[in-house]
Amino acid sequence: MKVGDVSYRSVWRDGDSVGIIDQTSLPYEFRTLTLRTCEEVAHAIKTMQVRGAPLIGAVAAYGVALALHKDASDNALAAAIDTLADTRPTAVNLRWSLDRMLRQLGSLDPAARVDVAWSEAGRIADEDTELNRSIGDHGLPLIREVAKHRDVVNILTHCNAGWLATVDYGTALAPIYLAHDEGIQVHVWVDETRPRSQGFLTAWELSAHGVPYTLITDNAGGHLTQRGQVDLVIVGADRVTRDGHVCNKIGTYLKALAAKQSAVPFYAAVPSPTIDWSIDDAFSEIPIEERSGDEIRFVQGLDSDGQIARVTIGTDDMQVANPGFDVTPAELITGIITELGVIPATRDGLASIAGK
Amino acid sequence: MKVGDVSYRSVWRDGDSVGIIDQTSLPYEFRTLTLRTCEEVAHAIKTMQVRGAPLIGAVAAYGVALALHKDASDNALAAAIDTLADTRPTAVNLRWSLDRMLRQLGSLDPAARVDVAWSEAGRIADEDTELNRSIGDHGLPLIREVAKHRDVVNILTHCNAGWLATVDYGTALAPIYLAHDEGIQVHVWVDETRPRSQGFLTAWELSAHGVPYTLITDNAGGHLTQRGQVDLVIVGADRVTRDGHVCNKIGTYLKALAAKQSAVPFYAAVPSPTIDWSIDDAFSEIPIEERSGDEIRFVQGLDSDGQIARVTIGTDDMQVANPGFDVTPAELITGIITELGVIPATRDGLASIAGK
Repeated sequence: MKVGDVSYRSVWRDGDSVGIIDQTSLPYEFRTLTLRTCEEVAHAIKTMQVRGAPLIGAVAAYGVALALHKDASDNALAAAIDTLADTRPTAVNLRWSLDRMLRQLGSLDPAARVDVAWSEAGRIADEDTELNRSIGDHGLPLIREVAKHRDVVNILTHCNAGWLATVDYGTALAPIYLAHDEGIQVHVWVDETRPRSQGFLTAWELSAHGVPYTLITDNAGGHLTQRGQVDLVIVGADRVTRDGHVCNKIGTYLKALAAKQSAVPFYAAVPSPTIDWSIDDAFSEIPIEERSGDEIRFVQGLDSDGQIARVTIGTDDMQVANPGFDVTPAELITGIITELGVIPATRDGLASIAGK
Repeated sequence: MKVGDVSYRSVWRDGDSVGIIDQTSLPYEFRTLTLRTCEEVAHAIKTMQVRGAPLIGAVAAYGVALALHKDASDNALAAAIDTLADTRPTAVNLRWSLDRMLRQLGSLDPAARVDVAWSEAGRIADEDTELNRSIGDHGLPLIREVAKHRDVVNILTHCNAGWLATVDYGTALAPIYLAHDEGIQVHVWVDETRPRSQGFLTAWELSAHGVPYTLITDNAGGHLTQRGQVDLVIVGADRVTRDGHVCNKIGTYLKALAAKQSAVPFYAAVPSPTIDWSIDDAFSEIPIEERSGDEIRFVQGLDSDGQIARVTIGTDDMQVANPGFDVTPAELITGIITELGVIPATRDGLASIAGK
């Protein structure tokens, strides 16, 4: 996607280095970083200079290539993979991506490894881009349809499921970027998404690409939907069950209730590997991560010198609870947008893409 | 209500001065202020050291008494009322309270005015306390009922409709304080209530009185309600229509949807004067105030020296919208708790207390 007039991905090869966008400086400042070693990549993942499951997977793959530049031995390869895997222990894409690199590289002669590592990392990045582009292609007709009878298509989204969380396009935002690029007038209502305010990232990336948006508090979406100011809701998802229930960032469920109440279509956009075929009861079997209360007590902001700082807004003795995700029942979901097509959020709908 | 072992109201007479709790220093620090002149009272209202419609009305009445201490002439009385009325031009209770003071004082001999002003201001404060206490008395049985089959009664609330917003007890929190005081195990889920985070005030006042609570983001209440962790929702209201629709702080509507979906009772607690008999269509006739986007771009926090400061969290060019209120349709509301009793949120229900 674009930042002003320049096209960017969220990660790219830059000679024998890797380029990323420093997401910790957003939305305040746009800054790219050049990573030259595997350790610098691990640091970037750990400190959330890059975040979003698909992006982390791709960046880690590039990290393997950087490590092999210095030392392509079996030991060095194993050490690099350990270092990178430890950065975010629960990230599924990270593990998947590193396993794939090891499969490609493990049996090769060390001298041949560097080139293969670069090209495999590049393939992982390209495949993520293609996958998201396909999600966009399948979601685009939903927006075109609304545009037939609306001057501006108003879309509500939650959290950040955009290109900053992936290599390019994003998931929920992919159809929106494609609609904008073909000249449809879209406008995005962006939920702030407390406690971590990922809505600021969504606002930034939409703005950088030139897509009109308005940031709102998490409280406002119900009112706007009730008053006819939302034509479509599109969110990402961390997990979709075979019954079509959607686990996503906390607060998603409330927006789905508001959409249902006002007969506004509600879609989750996900790569098909996000579908978890093993879950029978979404409401008891999906563990809901209880995250640190400090995410509520502190916010990222600018201090009086304009420097990015962690700012106390609560008090130390304040009792807080911080569930990170919620489950939106399938009955509230109009459809699931995948790279294989838009399917109903039902067991039959999901089954139609099983194994594809 | 209590702060530790000491009983407080939100405003009180202190000899020839007026005491208030400085709400701008909460939740960080508990600080009382002594106001000695009408100008100090006006300043306290303007800078939101006191806030909440019922409390502002009472504090302004005390401000008239302070003004008359210095000069009880007709001109001084008129000037004081002008000064106080200008502090928050749209506050209905403020206007009502000042009109009442003028009615009582205008025809009196100046020499008699000071004593009458103090006693009338005291009466306004006492009446607010009594009214809220009655709301509490009528709401209490709803909590007692849940307590029959629950060890702990979990109540979700939004914004601050507690004693800090009134002279004592609060509206939504009045039944909760009474339940706690009679030994029922209550626990309150407190919505943060972005953008102004009045949930921090609610958390503080519950904690000060010893009521167990947990602060959550505005995104979390749906999930908790879905998982059976909310037994009752009680909120305040800025306006209730004769059809039982409830206009309250933005985000209330989403919590009402979640309550309905999980068959959890949802109540609004209001003084009967909050019922607006003139509204035919709540969804078109109630103006929804669009508030400053700076409420979203900035938050109150502590700077690195621990001083209370306004902190930038957004960016200047960030597009934001900030509707301040929403309307929850009557069909989502189990009942309206008033000082006259708990009534159904229907035209017949409201009519049953009309004119009382």
